[in-house]
Amino acid sequence: MSQPTHVYPVLWYDDHVRLIDQTRLPNEFDYVEIRLAEDLAMAIETMIVRGAPAIGVAAAYGVYLGAKAIQTSDRSQFLAQLEPVAARLRKTRPTAVNLFWAIDRMLKVAHQTLGSVDYLKQVLLVTAQAINADDIRTCEQIGDHGVTVLPSSPAKLRLLTHCNAGALATAGYGTALGVVRSAWREGRLERVYADETRPRLQGAKLTAWECVQEGIPVTVITDNMAAHCMQRGLIDMVVVGADRIAANGDTANKIGTYSVALAAKAHGIPFYVAAPLSTIDFAIADGSQIPIEERDPSEIYQVGETLLCPKGAEFYNPAFDVTPASLITAIITEHGAIAPQELQPRLQPLALV
Amino acid sequence: MSQPTHVYPVLWYDDHVRLIDQTRLPNEFDYVEIRLAEDLAMAIETMIVRGAPAIGVAAAYGVYLGAKAIQTSDRSQFLAQLEPVAARLRKTRPTAVNLFWAIDRMLKVAHQTLGSVDYLKQVLLVTAQAINADDIRTCEQIGDHGVTVLPSSPAKLRLLTHCNAGALATAGYGTALGVVRSAWREGRLERVYADETRPRLQGAKLTAWECVQEGIPVTVITDNMAAHCMQRGLIDMVVVGADRIAANGDTANKIGTYSVALAAKAHGIPFYVAAPLSTIDFAIADGSQIPIEERDPSEIYQVGETLLCPKGAEFYNPAFDVTPASLITAIITEHGAIAPQELQPRLQPLALV
Repeated sequence: MSQPTHVYPVLWYDDHVRLIDQTRLPNEFDYVEIRLAEDLAMAIETMIVRGAPAIGVAAAYGVYLGAKAIQTSDRSQFLAQLEPVAARLRKTRPTAVNLFWAIDRMLKVAHQTLGSVDYLKQVLLVTAQAINADDIRTCEQIGDHGVTVLPSSPAKLRLLTHCNAGALATAGYGTALGVVRSAWREGRLERVYADETRPRLQGAKLTAWECVQEGIPVTVITDNMAAHCMQRGLIDMVVVGADRIAANGDTANKIGTYSVALAAKAHGIPFYVAAPLSTIDFAIADGSQIPIEERDPSEIYQVGETLLCPKGAEFYNPAFDVTPASLITAIITEHGAIAPQELQPRLQPLALV
Repeated sequence: MSQPTHVYPVLWYDDHVRLIDQTRLPNEFDYVEIRLAEDLAMAIETMIVRGAPAIGVAAAYGVYLGAKAIQTSDRSQFLAQLEPVAARLRKTRPTAVNLFWAIDRMLKVAHQTLGSVDYLKQVLLVTAQAINADDIRTCEQIGDHGVTVLPSSPAKLRLLTHCNAGALATAGYGTALGVVRSAWREGRLERVYADETRPRLQGAKLTAWECVQEGIPVTVITDNMAAHCMQRGLIDMVVVGADRIAANGDTANKIGTYSVALAAKAHGIPFYVAAPLSTIDFAIADGSQIPIEERDPSEIYQVGETLLCPKGAEFYNPAFDVTPASLITAIITEHGAIAPQELQPRLQPLALV
C-alpha cells in the first residue's frame, strides 16, 4: 500500500487512464488501469471514480479512448462513430453536470478541429489532458478564494464537510477540501468534522483518508450528529462540494447536504458551496429541474458482508438532494466567492466561452 | 428462528428474566436468559435490551435479581445490601431517565413495605412485574392518544420515525410505534419511513423488523435522506420516542432526532414525541441539564467485520441529542397529547404520586 502525498484520482499514464480505486479506500490503495471507453463508463457507474469534477475529467479521457478505438480515416465516419461513445458515457450518472460539460467540450473540439482523423485523435487526448490539468489549477484557485471568506474568529476554525469533495473527487486538491487545504496551509484550521455520508460513506472513507494523509486533524461523525455538533458550538463553518448548481444557485450535492444546510441556517453558521464554473448549469433555472439519481437499495441494506435490514423492508435511495440557494452563504468558484443571486450576472458570460 | 406476533423484549419467565437479544436482530431472533443483576446490567450496557421504557422494566427486574441473591434475613442488612445493586444498575446508561425512575420505585417499595425479607423479595418481584405490565398498557394508551392527533388529511398518512421506539424499546407495543400500530389499526397509515439511525442502526434493524412483522409497509432511508423526503412531500408527520424529557419539554432522544425536528420545522410538518410519564424528568428545568452518553467510537468506524475509516481518524459518538421544546408539536403520553409548555402544570401533579 503505497500512498502518494499528492492525490490524483485520474491520470493519463503512458497509453491509458489510471484511476485510484475509490471503492477500496481507505483499507487498500490501488489503481485500476483503463484502456476502453466502456470500462471507463463502468468505472464511473460503480464509483471507482466519483465526484463531479473527477467524473468530468474521467469522461473526457473516456471520449478519447473511444475515439482512439475507431477504425476509420474518414472524418465524417469518425465523428459519427464518436456519438455512441459519448452517448454511452452520458448514461453513466445523471446528476453531476461536469460529466456532460466535459463530453460536450470534447465533441466540440472534435467537430471544430481541422485535419486528419489521426490529428483529431491527438487533439482529443491533449484536450482531455488540458481538462485534467485545468481542474487541478481551478481547485487550487477555489481553495485560495475560500481562505478569503473564512470567519475571522475564532483564529483556528472547525470546518464541517459532507461527503468527499476532495482531491479524490476532482483531478486533485479538491473543492471543499481545497478550501480545507488552503485554510490549513494558512494556519486557520483547527479540525475538520467529516460527516460519514451514508450510504456510500465517502466522508468516513475518503475525506477522513485525505485529511489523515495531510496530517489534518479529522473527527468523523455520523450524518445525524452534525446538527448536534452545531448546537454544541463545535462547528464554525460548513463547506461542501456540488454536483450541479442551477442558475439561481440551488445546489444538488450528495444526499444529506440539504439537512446540513438546514441545521447550519438554524444555528447561524455560514454554509459555503465550493465548485468550479463547470458545475454550474445555466441552462436550468432552479434546482427542481436537476435530475436526481436513484441508486441500488443494496447500498442502504448492506455494508461489507453485513445485512442490516429484515427481508420485506423497502428502500428509497436518492444519491443527491437539492439545497435551495436561500440556505447558501456563497458559492466559492475559481472566479471568487459569489452569492447565489450573483451567479448569473457575474459568471454566465464566462461560461459561454 | 421463531418470531412472535406480539413482541415482548423483557419478560419474567419461570424464575428469571428473558430478553430478546436486540443486537442480533433482524438476522437472528433469539433470547438471552438472565439470572443475575450483574448480567442484567451488562445486557443494558451492551444494548441487548435498549429503549428508555424497556431499560426501566429491565432494571426493575435487575433490582429484584439483586435482592433475591442477598443472603440475609435481617431487614436493615437487606436494605443496605440492595444499595450497591441499585448503584450498579444506575451506572449502566446515563441518559434514559426511566432507568432511574424504575430503580427508585423499586427501592421505595422495599423501604416502605413491612414484613420479612422473604416477603420484601416477593413484593419486589410483583412490583417489577407491575412495572412491566403497566408499561404495555401505557404504550397502548399512548398509541390510542396518538390517533387523535393524526393530521386529518391525507386519509392515509406517511409517518417518519427515527431509531426504534417500538415494542422492542418498551415492554411491548411501543411509544412512537405504538402510535404507528394504532394508526395502522384505524386504517390511517399508508407507510412508515424509518431512518436507519446510525451508528447502531436501530431503525434499519429493529423498526423495520417490527413493521415487517406487523405487515406495515416500511421504507428504510439513511438518516440524511429525511429532509429530502420532506422536501419531496413524502412525509406527513414525524413521531419519535424519548429518553428523557425536561420539565420545559426539551427532549433527549436518539442522536439525529434534533436534525429531523429541524427539518420538520422547516417544512411545516408536525413533530410529535411519544413517551410515558416516567420519561419526564420534572427535576430538571431544561434540556441543557440532561447528561448525554458518549459511546465507543467503534460503533462509528466498524459495521460487522468491515472497518470504514482510516487509521488516524478521530471520532465523536454522542448517543443522544436534545430537541428544544420549540420544535415539538406535542408530547403524546398515556394522559393525552400535551403541548410542551403544558407538561408541568398538567402532568407534574401526576408524577408525584
